[in-house]
Amino acid sequence: MWSIIIVIILSVIAYFITDQLIPNLKDLFINAGLYGVDLCKNSKNKIPEALGVVSGCIFLVTSFTFIPIVFGNGLMDRESFPHNEFAELLAALLSICCMLLLGFADDVLDLRWRYKLLLPTVASLPLLVVYYVNFNSTTFVIPIPFREWLGASINIGFLYYIYMGMLAVFCTNAINILAGINGLEVGQSVIIAISVIVFDIIELRGDQYKAHTFSLHIMLPYLATALALLKHNWYPSKVFVGDTFCYVSGMTFAVVGILSHFSKTVLLFFLPQIINFLYSVPQLFHFVPCPRHRLPKYSAETDLLQASRTVIVKKDMTFLTKTIVQILRIIQLVDVKEDSDTIVMNNLTLINLFLIKFGPMPEVRLVIMLMLFQCLCSCIAFVIRYPMASYFYDT
Amino acid sequence: MWSIIIVIILSVIAYFITDQLIPNLKDLFINAGLYGVDLCKNSKNKIPEALGVVSGCIFLVTSFTFIPIVFGNGLMDRESFPHNEFAELLAALLSICCMLLLGFADDVLDLRWRYKLLLPTVASLPLLVVYYVNFNSTTFVIPIPFREWLGASINIGFLYYIYMGMLAVFCTNAINILAGINGLEVGQSVIIAISVIVFDIIELRGDQYKAHTFSLHIMLPYLATALALLKHNWYPSKVFVGDTFCYVSGMTFAVVGILSHFSKTVLLFFLPQIINFLYSVPQLFHFVPCPRHRLPKYSAETDLLQASRTVIVKKDMTFLTKTIVQILRIIQLVDVKEDSDTIVMNNLTLINLFLIKFGPMPEVRLVIMLMLFQCLCSCIAFVIRYPMASYFYDT
Repeated sequence: MWSIIIVIILSVIAYFITDQLIPNLKDLFINAGLYGVDLCKNSKNKIPEALGVVSGCIFLVTSFTFIPIVFGNGLMDRESFPHNEFAELLAALLSICCMLLLGFADDVLDLRWRYKLLLPTVASLPLLVVYYVNFNSTTFVIPIPFREWLGASINIGFLYYIYMGMLAVFCTNAINILAGINGLEVGQSVIIAISVIVFDIIELRGDQYKAHTFSLHIMLPYLATALALLKHNWYPSKVFVGDTFCYVSGMTFAVVGILSHFSKTVLLFFLPQIINFLYSVPQLFHFVPCPRHRLPKYSAETDLLQASRTVIVKKDMTFLTKTIVQILRIIQLVDVKEDSDTIVMNNLTLINLFLIKFGPMPEVRLVIMLMLFQCLCSCIAFVIRYPMASYFYDT
Repeated sequence: MWSIIIVIILSVIAYFITDQLIPNLKDLFINAGLYGVDLCKNSKNKIPEALGVVSGCIFLVTSFTFIPIVFGNGLMDRESFPHNEFAELLAALLSICCMLLLGFADDVLDLRWRYKLLLPTVASLPLLVVYYVNFNSTTFVIPIPFREWLGASINIGFLYYIYMGMLAVFCTNAINILAGINGLEVGQSVIIAISVIVFDIIELRGDQYKAHTFSLHIMLPYLATALALLKHNWYPSKVFVGDTFCYVSGMTFAVVGILSHFSKTVLLFFLPQIINFLYSVPQLFHFVPCPRHRLPKYSAETDLLQASRTVIVKKDMTFLTKTIVQILRIIQLVDVKEDSDTIVMNNLTLINLFLIKFGPMPEVRLVIMLMLFQCLCSCIAFVIRYPMASYFYDT
């Protein structure tokens, strides 16, 4: 327990260092050509980009410095040193460090999609080996209603490793595609991090307390550095966080989910990201035309955001495209304007969905609404995890 | 032993992938503004910079993919899994990955010196913890002639960890300051790597064979990716390697030296870098004026390089500066031109020293001479390590 107190102290220090460093390093980023213009503002100021690398580095450094402190007890008596826990922490940090590197390289070099999918998979390899060595539990417990057919549990073996590798790829990219307005990337990550921490604290008294202590060791410095970043990234943004931040965040959640064995619970906290991903699938896989940016459209006169749109030429429509558009219309998840030649509909992102359902609104209200939705989903996740789970599982 | 064969196969694959990727990714780097102009050439072509990040990434990915292969034997029987060796490899890769990130950040952002010294120290922390846990041997064996006074060995305790931390900082920066002409950074690293590999092979039959197998697991993929990079970086350079490469190389050598317990032998292979560092000290610590670049001067008419020079204003000279210049003149290590007000002397780098001793020469001849000097120093290192060591140590 004392190790958690030390991590809290280190995290508070990390918060203040990150908060200090970000404004100091802004010019370095602008001079290096790492800047963008905020498309949802009138001013055309240069906003430094990829500042997530700063919070990510401080997060890593904090984790490094507490290695000797957390393992200090074990170091006294080297015979009983917990080599497996140490290897777990190293593998976790290695995977996160890789994603920090990949994210930054992506921000600087604008990598192609194949690298974005390949590298998180490779980066999660040390993690999977540690999982294999320390646990190798590849069993899914079957919910009670299905046990009649499938038995109490099912061992999916090698598929479980594929599932974990895909979890890393999904988490790193899911945050990245629910992005584009001030504070959204960091805001959602902060809420997920707080949800994971609350879950850890609840479970600290259970028999999995070791796994949840491990999770807290990672999540607390992560939350501290993300909060400092949010302060500067919140509307109106003085810095942008870049892919760097999204990748580091995603990998951090994946690492914690995998090594602390609550990957399904982590996925529950990703509900808005999953909804956004599923809703985006028709455009991500190009069944519906996908413009380079799907950001909402900013109107300078009203200072409001409205849904951005994509144009489908009717004569180019395949049967699949027609079906998808038809289904989305029936369940009222798109706003469509149709004439004889074209169909104009909103881009399929959660952000645009909010804008068509609640009408045009200022950027800051939109981001707050999305944050509230994320909080609501976390509450739903806790309901599913606790009261409901007892109907489906023996607890 | 079979693990080494697998690593050789993976390294050959890594060589070809790196060799393919570098020309393919060149434009990405130029588009991102990561390019420079070769100051020692007539043409003013844009040469992509920081390509060391490509070889570094492939090096890391290769190491990741062989984790399950090398530890495959151990995985069969999880009770006897070598957790400590696994943690060693993870810590090594974590430190190298950190340096890759720092180096790339430095290339992109042009970091200040304090970060360059601070971050390698932090990056070596996981390494030192692993060392503490697995070995914690902080004993220096005293050479025989001094044993009368100091005893057979001396335990320097905590100082040993400071020594190792400084080794990481030294190795990462030593390669970086012996640089500036085509192929030099990679060339010297390749020779050091080959020297370490030869040393490993010699020692493979000894009782430290495990440590040397570990070293080979790291050095072989490193050498393969560095060779592929050298192919493109050799005179006339089609790519520059950037600080990224120097940092990764330095940390790789430090990691191997520390975890395989032959850090003193690694330092022997760094003889030219140590000479260059000592020779540079008066400028590095600003006892003698240090211009931003100390590259040799290119003469477009003759296509030859000659030593670059620094100007000391006589009335600004402190006593220390005077003494240093005087000593350097007496031991004939500088070329000085003096008038009533100023002293003009060559910048204090090994490259310029070669140019004042052997006269102006083409760039390619200079780099070959420096490579031969590196080889000579490796031979001297082996003489010190083997025939001479038996006079000083019991072998």
